[in-house]
Amino acid sequence: MVETIGWTIPQWLEAQRASSSEEGLARIIAQVATFSKDDVAFITIASEDFLKTQWEQLQAIPKAKELPLYGVPFAPKDNTDVAGLPTTVACPAFKYNPTKDAVIIQMLKSAGAIPICKTNLDQFATGLVGTRSPYGAVPSAFNSEYCSGGSSSGSSNVVARGLAPFSLGTDTAGSGRVPAMHNNLIGLKPSRGAFSATGVVPACRELDCVSVFAQNLPDAKAVFDLAAKYDPADSYSRPLPDIMLPSFGPKPKLAIPDVPQWFDDTENAPLWEKTVEEFKAAGVELIPSDFTPMYKLGACLYEGPWVAERYTVVRKLIESDPDAMDPTVRTIIQQANKFSAADQFDWEHLRRDLVREIETKFADFDGFLVPTAPLSPKIKDVQADPIKLNSKQGTYTNFVNFADMAALAIPAGFRQDSMPFGVTIVGRKHTDYALLDIAQKVLSSKERLLGNLGKKSVVNVTDVV
Amino acid sequence: MVETIGWTIPQWLEAQRASSSEEGLARIIAQVATFSKDDVAFITIASEDFLKTQWEQLQAIPKAKELPLYGVPFAPKDNTDVAGLPTTVACPAFKYNPTKDAVIIQMLKSAGAIPICKTNLDQFATGLVGTRSPYGAVPSAFNSEYCSGGSSSGSSNVVARGLAPFSLGTDTAGSGRVPAMHNNLIGLKPSRGAFSATGVVPACRELDCVSVFAQNLPDAKAVFDLAAKYDPADSYSRPLPDIMLPSFGPKPKLAIPDVPQWFDDTENAPLWEKTVEEFKAAGVELIPSDFTPMYKLGACLYEGPWVAERYTVVRKLIESDPDAMDPTVRTIIQQANKFSAADQFDWEHLRRDLVREIETKFADFDGFLVPTAPLSPKIKDVQADPIKLNSKQGTYTNFVNFADMAALAIPAGFRQDSMPFGVTIVGRKHTDYALLDIAQKVLSSKERLLGNLGKKSVVNVTDVV
Repeated sequence: MVETIGWTIPQWLEAQRASSSEEGLARIIAQVATFSKDDVAFITIASEDFLKTQWEQLQAIPKAKELPLYGVPFAPKDNTDVAGLPTTVACPAFKYNPTKDAVIIQMLKSAGAIPICKTNLDQFATGLVGTRSPYGAVPSAFNSEYCSGGSSSGSSNVVARGLAPFSLGTDTAGSGRVPAMHNNLIGLKPSRGAFSATGVVPACRELDCVSVFAQNLPDAKAVFDLAAKYDPADSYSRPLPDIMLPSFGPKPKLAIPDVPQWFDDTENAPLWEKTVEEFKAAGVELIPSDFTPMYKLGACLYEGPWVAERYTVVRKLIESDPDAMDPTVRTIIQQANKFSAADQFDWEHLRRDLVREIETKFADFDGFLVPTAPLSPKIKDVQADPIKLNSKQGTYTNFVNFADMAALAIPAGFRQDSMPFGVTIVGRKHTDYALLDIAQKVLSSKERLLGNLGKKSVVNVTDVV
Repeated sequence: MVETIGWTIPQWLEAQRASSSEEGLARIIAQVATFSKDDVAFITIASEDFLKTQWEQLQAIPKAKELPLYGVPFAPKDNTDVAGLPTTVACPAFKYNPTKDAVIIQMLKSAGAIPICKTNLDQFATGLVGTRSPYGAVPSAFNSEYCSGGSSSGSSNVVARGLAPFSLGTDTAGSGRVPAMHNNLIGLKPSRGAFSATGVVPACRELDCVSVFAQNLPDAKAVFDLAAKYDPADSYSRPLPDIMLPSFGPKPKLAIPDVPQWFDDTENAPLWEKTVEEFKAAGVELIPSDFTPMYKLGACLYEGPWVAERYTVVRKLIESDPDAMDPTVRTIIQQANKFSAADQFDWEHLRRDLVREIETKFADFDGFLVPTAPLSPKIKDVQADPIKLNSKQGTYTNFVNFADMAALAIPAGFRQDSMPFGVTIVGRKHTDYALLDIAQKVLSSKERLLGNLGKKSVVNVTDVV
């Protein structure tokens, strides 16, 4: 079914609504039949039986064709439970067979969407690279030598390749943003607690956000509209305010790093400079600012005791069978043992002090504009140095959930090596729509390059929100 | 100055405004001159020189006499910095001489108030009894065999005796409520972050609340109005909403424990029953409910790793000179060593789950009505069994700050042994005014007994808010 590749949500929806139930199911089955078991983007590909069952459930909903995602396939990350498919979190020893869908899967299915696979990830969602998985290192859809980014490596890769119109990631340190950059996608990291995490294997519960990858802004927004619902069963879920800020107004004011950190990279800086000019041309005020408190806050995530929160998830496994884990992920999570509860409180106080410093210093800003990641690393370079390169990738993402902010990663041009660059707009909690509004202003003022996916990637991000 | 004993804030204010500057200062000096150095309620009594300096600072404020607390004395707890007086936190080895006032002291001084002492407390604000201090066990103002309650033992005792019209406590587990009960006072434990904690020695920073003891509701409200201000320097300070809920309406709905726990006490139960009837008579709907989740949540505070947050405060001392600490307080804080950072996260998740359970179960309630404490313990009994009796005293208070709720302790009659009983109204964050409104409805419908302070305690809580 090559013809489905690259379809957006409205294109899928239109085709499915115009088809009989049998044709609709056949379209999904044919799409999934093109997936290869050797494709490292997948951990599990849905069977025909599974798809038939999903389809029957969908048809049982009254007026199913009126549902906003009727028959639209999507790709959940394999830390999110889908009843009938195993959850592995990229760790075969941790694998289990959930009997219930995660709440966000239920919500999307209730809206008509069909889960078609479980995607690969950095094990236990611990990584920003996509190489930390026994199921294989996931490449960027744009250059197979390069990382897809992680931890939502498979979910970003499959959307970039048009295998699904949207996918779910999760984002604690940047896992919904960094892979969006490396795959030229929209990466919507909503406000903390906006999406239910019930049925999602946690990393750091207070910080974890289920996230969305989409080809364009309207698709990302459509998923947010459907999935952002308070879930009393998730103790970290929070209701959205009755009235969400729609826009920062005609001239949003964003801080940008006064001295962006690129480490040894040379290609991203000029793309950043170009994007800064595009934002200015779209009416956004950009103020170069000292990002030291954000860097310090971000560093807490892996230098501090928050790795111990990940430890609570794998406690049994890491204590009984540590060799069953990816060695890099294990090494990181074992850092937990360095920290006492008293240390944790010391770090939590530091975190709160840094958050307050940021709130105070940037009180009259609408938010930040940052490169999504400083580097575009090759898989072999990450495999040779799996921790240091990874941690550099979190430079502009790690602080965001600590500071209780929303973020939207958007494409920002292509490098000589055909890898995409990306930037992220960051705002206070519950500015999700205002972030989409800024992105729309900027993206609609320019043509989006399609990179080397060529005509298969037919979607243009300038589609209006 | 026996004639000042029992004065409320308006009485002090009226007298001070009617006096010359010299007379006003003399009135304060004379009041403080009645304080005995042997009085266990005090750790430090202000010197005449100190009071003169404070008075000069006050007179330097333009139109000082118009200030809402002009020349009104008050009693800070000795975990709150007052420049010119040492801070001990009831631990001589920890003592230091602050050069700046705590922000809340600054605020009250800017409103015209004069700090006149530093009051005794359970060391490091760790206790609900008032016996855990090398400066002596503080008795109730109503029966010297009985505990004042803690940790704000001195602050409650001195207001009950009329030595100051109001005082500051702090309240993490109940330290602003339990002593209010044992001293027949209003104990206002505001919403978390409403009062600045800058310059207050912390116990558990996320939970700590500076609190107010007053003889009546209007005085407690007056201090709240003046002191509840956002402080950017305190990372846990939170702005109040622009519009605070003034009232729960004519028929507030409160949950009460279906099976109140009194342990071995027999005198408080009948007073509770009588108070329940008084609340009903005042139009409050009271629904007996299962308080298990609140008990479980409260138990986290001392069974869980939050003692490790206290450890961070005393880390140097407890590691270098543990014998310098009160043995009971030391034993409690040393429990911190049992907990790793991973354990801390496990408990934090449990805490969040219990809070969510409470929020969900009581979603259509305005709040809770509880006995302030189940027991009225004698000092000798607490000294014989210093941990167990203390922990029972937190039955109805420990959960409140964990659940991010505001609380107001009010008097509720007297026992045969002349000890006062008390109840506490609990509501969601930022219901502080609505709690005062309920209390006003109830207290104005009955005469308040004055206990054995006799005519010295001339204030009637039925004074209107």
